[in-house]
Amino acid sequence: MTKGAQTREMILARTAPLFNRMGYFGASLADIMRATGLEKGGIYNHFASKDDLALAAFDYSVGLVRQRFAEALAGKRHAAERLRAIIGVLRDMVVNPPVSGGCPLLNTAIEADDAHPALRARARATMDEWCEMVQRIVAKGVERGELRAGTDPAAVATMLLATLEGAIMISRLYDDARHLAYVEQHLDWYIDGLLAPSDVPATAD
Amino acid sequence: MTKGAQTREMILARTAPLFNRMGYFGASLADIMRATGLEKGGIYNHFASKDDLALAAFDYSVGLVRQRFAEALAGKRHAAERLRAIIGVLRDMVVNPPVSGGCPLLNTAIEADDAHPALRARARATMDEWCEMVQRIVAKGVERGELRAGTDPAAVATMLLATLEGAIMISRLYDDARHLAYVEQHLDWYIDGLLAPSDVPATAD
Ligand SMILES: [Mg+2]
Ligand SMILES: [Mg+2]
Repeated sequence: MTKGAQTREMILARTAPLFNRMGYFGASLADIMRATGLEKGGIYNHFASKDDLALAAFDYSVGLVRQRFAEALAGKRHAAERLRAIIGVLRDMVVNPPVSGGCPLLNTAIEADDAHPALRARARATMDEWCEMVQRIVAKGVERGELRAGTDPAAVATMLLATLEGAIMISRLYDDARHLAYVEQHLDWYIDGLLAPSDVPATAD
Repeated sequence: MTKGAQTREMILARTAPLFNRMGYFGASLADIMRATGLEKGGIYNHFASKDDLALAAFDYSVGLVRQRFAEALAGKRHAAERLRAIIGVLRDMVVNPPVSGGCPLLNTAIEADDAHPALRARARATMDEWCEMVQRIVAKGVERGELRAGTDPAAVATMLLATLEGAIMISRLYDDARHLAYVEQHLDWYIDGLLAPSDVPATAD
């Protein structure tokens, strides 16, 4: 990596948590200078504008979450197991987040939906990606006879992502992971309900 | 109402949607002046600071939601009917919100959790109020034999609020109410599952 590329990477690694905690509008240039230890010129050498930096920092944060999904899914084959792996990554957004400040998609969607079209476009593209990830798992699970025929992939994607993102909001607001634990338990049971009858584990008695 | 009180009310009515759409950090003094048609001095006659105005605007927005809850609950007695009334109010946050910009509690919780302690405290107090509203309905429903004995009021409150707030986020991000419709259908079925066996409506056949 060239020295320029290293500096660019350092700026992203340090501003991604700043934007995730303070928001695009809440993070000032002074905050960005403090977080990176660079002067204004040193930052604008690598990014054309605050917008340009914020978009790149969002991509950086989302890239870390994408890596978590990939690690969690590796080696898991059954659709239910894969859905539970995704749930686990989102549950960790409160106790062990890849970027400080909670879920970057949730934070950016809320801040940008009415206020920042370019960031909103990135948030939509990321939500597309996460929804499609869940939908592919469900569709494949139905195809393989792991999940009930007729299970609607889009409905499952919305249910999982909406429920978990809402619980991330509440758990972070109270600094209390209990809310995520409640919904995780519910989703566990929801996924059990998606299993094809032949795939439901037999009980011991 | 005195002229001063009228002006204060007008400022709140016009800045509540501004803060709800742009966020506390995103709404500038210039935006506030434009929204109210007042000069800086005219605003600071009524509010000590931007913080003071933002806190009052949050209370104003939350007051409008509180009114919606009261109207939706009026005349409804059965716990399931009351829970569905609450769901209806939150569903309307996308298609017919009391304040433009979506759910003020969701928006403020996300923006303030790491970035603004005073707004976070208001958001927590409001979440307390909404959770307690659901919990009281569930506890009373169990007491009256409408809901299953052993139903956990706190778990139901988290489930309802997390799922709906997450779906509000996704539906607003895409400007597509379908996501809320999915979770509303799921919650309908979830509430059916809470009904005490004797309270489940008999099927026709
Ligand atoms: Mg917003
Ligand atoms: Mg936040």
